[in-house]
Amino acid sequence: MAGNSFGLLFRITTFGESHGKAIGVVVDGVPAGLPLSSEDIYRELMLRRPGHRYGTPRRELDVPEIVSGVFRGVTSGGPVTVLIWNRDVDSSPYEELKYTPRPGHADLQMIRKYGFDAWDYRGGGRASGRETAARVAAGAIAKKLLCSLGILIIGYVRSIGKLRLEKEVHDPQILLRARLSPVKTFDPEFENKVMSLIDEVRRRGDSIGGCVEVVAFNVPPGLGEPVFDKLKADIAKAIMSIPGTVGVEFGLGMRLSEMLGSEASDSLIVEDGYVRYLRNVQGGIVGGISTGEPIIVRAYFKPTSSIALGIRTVDIRKMREVEIKVRGRHDPCIAIRAVPVVEAMLAIVLVDHAMRCGLISTDRLTLREVKNIEKYWDIYLRYSPPIDKSVEDRG
Amino acid sequence: MAGNSFGLLFRITTFGESHGKAIGVVVDGVPAGLPLSSEDIYRELMLRRPGHRYGTPRRELDVPEIVSGVFRGVTSGGPVTVLIWNRDVDSSPYEELKYTPRPGHADLQMIRKYGFDAWDYRGGGRASGRETAARVAAGAIAKKLLCSLGILIIGYVRSIGKLRLEKEVHDPQILLRARLSPVKTFDPEFENKVMSLIDEVRRRGDSIGGCVEVVAFNVPPGLGEPVFDKLKADIAKAIMSIPGTVGVEFGLGMRLSEMLGSEASDSLIVEDGYVRYLRNVQGGIVGGISTGEPIIVRAYFKPTSSIALGIRTVDIRKMREVEIKVRGRHDPCIAIRAVPVVEAMLAIVLVDHAMRCGLISTDRLTLREVKNIEKYWDIYLRYSPPIDKSVEDRG
Amino acid sequence: MAGNSFGLLFRITTFGESHGKAIGVVVDGVPAGLPLSSEDIYRELMLRRPGHRYGTPRRELDVPEIVSGVFRGVTSGGPVTVLIWNRDVDSSPYEELKYTPRPGHADLQMIRKYGFDAWDYRGGGRASGRETAARVAAGAIAKKLLCSLGILIIGYVRSIGKLRLEKEVHDPQILLRARLSPVKTFDPEFENKVMSLIDEVRRRGDSIGGCVEVVAFNVPPGLGEPVFDKLKADIAKAIMSIPGTVGVEFGLGMRLSEMLGSEASDSLIVEDGYVRYLRNVQGGIVGGISTGEPIIVRAYFKPTSSIALGIRTVDIRKMREVEIKVRGRHDPCIAIRAVPVVEAMLAIVLVDHAMRCGLISTDRLTLREVKNIEKYWDIYLRYSPPIDKSVEDRG
Amino acid sequence: MAGNSFGLLFRITTFGESHGKAIGVVVDGVPAGLPLSSEDIYRELMLRRPGHRYGTPRRELDVPEIVSGVFRGVTSGGPVTVLIWNRDVDSSPYEELKYTPRPGHADLQMIRKYGFDAWDYRGGGRASGRETAARVAAGAIAKKLLCSLGILIIGYVRSIGKLRLEKEVHDPQILLRARLSPVKTFDPEFENKVMSLIDEVRRRGDSIGGCVEVVAFNVPPGLGEPVFDKLKADIAKAIMSIPGTVGVEFGLGMRLSEMLGSEASDSLIVEDGYVRYLRNVQGGIVGGISTGEPIIVRAYFKPTSSIALGIRTVDIRKMREVEIKVRGRHDPCIAIRAVPVVEAMLAIVLVDHAMRCGLISTDRLTLREVKNIEKYWDIYLRYSPPIDKSVEDRG
Repeated sequence: MAGNSFGLLFRITTFGESHGKAIGVVVDGVPAGLPLSSEDIYRELMLRRPGHRYGTPRRELDVPEIVSGVFRGVTSGGPVTVLIWNRDVDSSPYEELKYTPRPGHADLQMIRKYGFDAWDYRGGGRASGRETAARVAAGAIAKKLLCSLGILIIGYVRSIGKLRLEKEVHDPQILLRARLSPVKTFDPEFENKVMSLIDEVRRRGDSIGGCVEVVAFNVPPGLGEPVFDKLKADIAKAIMSIPGTVGVEFGLGMRLSEMLGSEASDSLIVEDGYVRYLRNVQGGIVGGISTGEPIIVRAYFKPTSSIALGIRTVDIRKMREVEIKVRGRHDPCIAIRAVPVVEAMLAIVLVDHAMRCGLISTDRLTLREVKNIEKYWDIYLRYSPPIDKSVEDRG
Repeated sequence: MAGNSFGLLFRITTFGESHGKAIGVVVDGVPAGLPLSSEDIYRELMLRRPGHRYGTPRRELDVPEIVSGVFRGVTSGGPVTVLIWNRDVDSSPYEELKYTPRPGHADLQMIRKYGFDAWDYRGGGRASGRETAARVAAGAIAKKLLCSLGILIIGYVRSIGKLRLEKEVHDPQILLRARLSPVKTFDPEFENKVMSLIDEVRRRGDSIGGCVEVVAFNVPPGLGEPVFDKLKADIAKAIMSIPGTVGVEFGLGMRLSEMLGSEASDSLIVEDGYVRYLRNVQGGIVGGISTGEPIIVRAYFKPTSSIALGIRTVDIRKMREVEIKVRGRHDPCIAIRAVPVVEAMLAIVLVDHAMRCGLISTDRLTLREVKNIEKYWDIYLRYSPPIDKSVEDRG
Repeated sequence: MAGNSFGLLFRITTFGESHGKAIGVVVDGVPAGLPLSSEDIYRELMLRRPGHRYGTPRRELDVPEIVSGVFRGVTSGGPVTVLIWNRDVDSSPYEELKYTPRPGHADLQMIRKYGFDAWDYRGGGRASGRETAARVAAGAIAKKLLCSLGILIIGYVRSIGKLRLEKEVHDPQILLRARLSPVKTFDPEFENKVMSLIDEVRRRGDSIGGCVEVVAFNVPPGLGEPVFDKLKADIAKAIMSIPGTVGVEFGLGMRLSEMLGSEASDSLIVEDGYVRYLRNVQGGIVGGISTGEPIIVRAYFKPTSSIALGIRTVDIRKMREVEIKVRGRHDPCIAIRAVPVVEAMLAIVLVDHAMRCGLISTDRLTLREVKNIEKYWDIYLRYSPPIDKSVEDRG
Repeated sequence: MAGNSFGLLFRITTFGESHGKAIGVVVDGVPAGLPLSSEDIYRELMLRRPGHRYGTPRRELDVPEIVSGVFRGVTSGGPVTVLIWNRDVDSSPYEELKYTPRPGHADLQMIRKYGFDAWDYRGGGRASGRETAARVAAGAIAKKLLCSLGILIIGYVRSIGKLRLEKEVHDPQILLRARLSPVKTFDPEFENKVMSLIDEVRRRGDSIGGCVEVVAFNVPPGLGEPVFDKLKADIAKAIMSIPGTVGVEFGLGMRLSEMLGSEASDSLIVEDGYVRYLRNVQGGIVGGISTGEPIIVRAYFKPTSSIALGIRTVDIRKMREVEIKVRGRHDPCIAIRAVPVVEAMLAIVLVDHAMRCGLISTDRLTLREVKNIEKYWDIYLRYSPPIDKSVEDRG
């Protein structure tokens, strides 16, 4: 296996299996001088925490341990390593699935690639959605670094199945409310509908797809390179590397493909002495480079593949078709828990490109940057659920 | 600027500006022993050739010159460099646009990034769609290499504006007909509708968006790495690096996000002794790794930004809003000419991953592989328009 | 900071500070199916173990913990993470050195790069020689993988100060004895001389430089790429990234620069049906590519910079020159403990290039390869000191 | 083949074969705003020009053509491509060598790797020393960019065979004279000795090794990363990728390995308000990071392998040992012509690391930087031989 790293100057490497000792991440390229605590990371991890009726009933405490790169509460310039020890692991449901790969999962491909006797089949092993907790941990560092430029990254659920939020809201203060919602939406009315739908889907032992929209505010113009390393290209890779994604789009996205040029065209205007885009149809990136307008990206997720309803597969020992029931514990809708993951991947790409442009140093932060970080990080804190160390008991 | 290279083991580096001396590409990682002529490359370049009423009236001969890496008709193991000298270049329409960046293009960002006095504004410079000719040249090499595994890459226009081909065809022999169509569709009826629509759009001085679908047949299972370098992630980056793209999806794509798990689920079956996917809902990639089923990817394109109708922009010297008319010569629908570009980018990713898996060597081809190449490359040839060196005269 | 990773397909990322919680390494690109235990790694770590009179008196137990990538005693295809928890850490001697950077160490540069208030000054922090334990851990995996091709990597001390072993021995069975020597030499007579010299140097509170030679046996021809990624280039980088190195050479090395072509020339001969080099003057690499002859590389080390004798430096708060005495605990000769580190770095480069050539898969090992691994790994085992878990008590 | 690129942010890709149409280089990562002409490049190429009695009698005009990346005399931000068309190519001597690989060259390895029927055997093909002309072209751009920081890179011949310049000179104005010397030395007396020695070696149909020293003045402290991407590690790779190198060292180099710590130790002092190193024993790099002192690196070269005296090799068709005489045209001492190549590779590494530190932008230069470039580039110009376009006639 290869390909467990992502990024050029700000480079993350994740490791660990779903039911192994631990999962974790090494973040290389973190400048010195960033105030960082395990609580900073824990808060973000809580946003993807299962153990809730709108997520999987698996209890994961996900308390992160910073193993390197932080000295006296501040990053020292070395790679930051975060470990999340695995607890509450029950591998028994997977024993019986060993020979019957689940069609929507990586199982069959893992067997083909790594060999039947070697691959870690427990909970999907390395291909488990649990790997994304390591991304969220790295994303917390990325988000905090982006605060030095005043950048805020906010995601929310745009649709669940055919249920779609039609409202267009561009106020970060409103969007931030999604961080406090159990189904990651800023709109109370939509929240109710989503909760009812998820309850119903769960009751039927089924699952459902969805769409996550993430917006990055205050991104300076100039991020991205005009040819292969376009900002939209690197973001697309980042998002399509998240398990369960089936598509990605920017700005008006695919609707643009149905339009005439005269409908889709944007205009440049002068506002407060700055050149701005009137409609931001392409979602903050034109020619592969950030425009200064909010970056708007949508990630589309398929329904969770593991459902309690029967699945037809093949017993690969006997090469015979069989029907299985996947027990385990699974989200009815992965899109909800994916919100902080999409945010994290977007944040990681933006830090990397800000470093490539020289807007964030890989060496060390200035005092002015640290001040800005404190100011903007505080905004996230105000929209964070209280830290709850008793999560284990609530299941 | 950076980011002019793409790929890990099979690595292309493009260079050149739209109105400079030449554009070109260096392809590193080509194994020795591949029969390769400039005609092989020219045939693919003809597929994206403008100079047609359904493309831009700009006359580009695009005759490629192989400058390195080929010795006595066969690749020698060294990097293959292809040059396409620029001819028929009229930069005059761009002089007057120098101070009035076109909103849908990279202009404003190029100015911000590279400075007003330095960036090459003629024809979009480095950010021009013309850069994609270099990708198609590299893609010809990639496609030919993939023939060693029997892989065929076939693209076609799926939709133009709201006009959409609903037919699902999975026979390569039928899809290949799109290579001979002026609007890159395999279906005669749809072809007529598309031509009428394009004619009308052009008459009105407008442009229109569209969607390109590309299918890769005979891809062996096992390509792609399970975490960040998922096959779908690398393909998404490859496609989103093409100018004009606004979204990308795989298999049933975003429709999956609207479905229940019970609707979206696939099944494994046994067919001729192989384990196969019944419905291929995810488009040939599950868990980020190829399944052996056809890879199906769709790229969504916005309408051409430069339209003859007026555009509102800003004169950046005077910081004053103005209306401009972009003359130049432009496609009414970039999606049509983009078909071979999407094919090329998909081919490049597949070769790279086949090399990472050891299925194609970076050192040299075996005789058996060369034989396979001849056999499958011949299929493309049978569906190629005749080489027409008088294209210049027809404009 | 960046640059904590090394390699293209077999890629290691080290992390951790000398006096932090732990140091460790993530090894990406390990194929599935490799039998691997923490004991395999521990044995190699013991070779660089201090706590001996010919090394530093610092007691480091260095028991490695495998955190990911191994399932039921065999690698699963995922990244292998090894942690070495720091124990016996006494940071007090460094408190007083905080403002007086040691001239031969990274101190001043770390302060300049990461800032006085952020860098981890305890024991050199990230720039400590302790980081190389993580490399040796990764090197154990690399060495074991190379056994699949029958490759053996054997290093020994070639010279200490002006004391030089003149003997040329090319029998792996003899060279392997160096693994059992406290001063890493295969020659008993030379061993005695080295021990006397080290004792004397230590007594005087001084330190001394040295040279390490490492030989790789049974390397197949064809490893390395002819231009920038020459095998000798990648090995040179690998070795010059080890703390304390001041030069590197191959084969006859710098002596070749003093010769005439007629003296330095080699000849090709036929031996047992193979084309071989008569003299192997260039040390197993010609034109940047392995020849099939033993690869011979020498790494030159400066004397340990921290000596008990006084050092003149600058108090950077007061910008005043001062004299300091570095207490801490240090090797009189880093070259001795560096032997397994040089071996590890050479092994890592060879695995990476074997993967680039397709000679080792990144996906999984075949049964035949696993058998070969067992056979050759056993050779190392026969020349390994007994595992001694009471090392802590002996100090 | 792969590995034809070098660098992370400032990234060069060379291409072309010795006797093909052209050799060339794509330089990615050049910021916009650098004044650049083909003359700038030609002047550097003249320094490695053969066609001189102290070089090979092959006549190479080496007039570079800039194909992309420069617009109106200034870099535009796009990749800069330089072509050097091959002329005066006589491949006939190589026809007879086709089956009898030259032992000191890459021949046998190229055959093994790329196949007997595919590799370009003419003049060494891709493995020819001629490839280094493309590096010198890229090095000219790198050197000019480094002028923005006031950095000067100056190389000279330190030894030829056993003939060694013992003088230590640290004045750039004196060292620069080597640029005007036919044997690349700044010392007139040493120059005479070298010329006599080369004449004698040539007369005997022999060749001789040598050592090149390159010094970089005015390098700011802080370049390099403390672990794998140490400045010395990246420079070592850069230099060991040059054909003919057998070793590399920094500062006092291998002599340090023979010293006691008390002899080898350096001291920090305060000079003009700066902390400086008293002796610069490690050659401007401590802990892998530049110290602000001059960077001093030495590259050791073996004697030219192709000599007129007979060579014993194997006819690989018949697997029979034979004696050959290599005609062709060759340097008696490659170290002399290698001086600008070593300079180029050092410059390329320094630009890359200056970009990683944010000291040079990949986007665009400021006016102040351009002014500095003009000032320092002028120093090189004053020590450049007059451009001589009649070189062809002189042979």
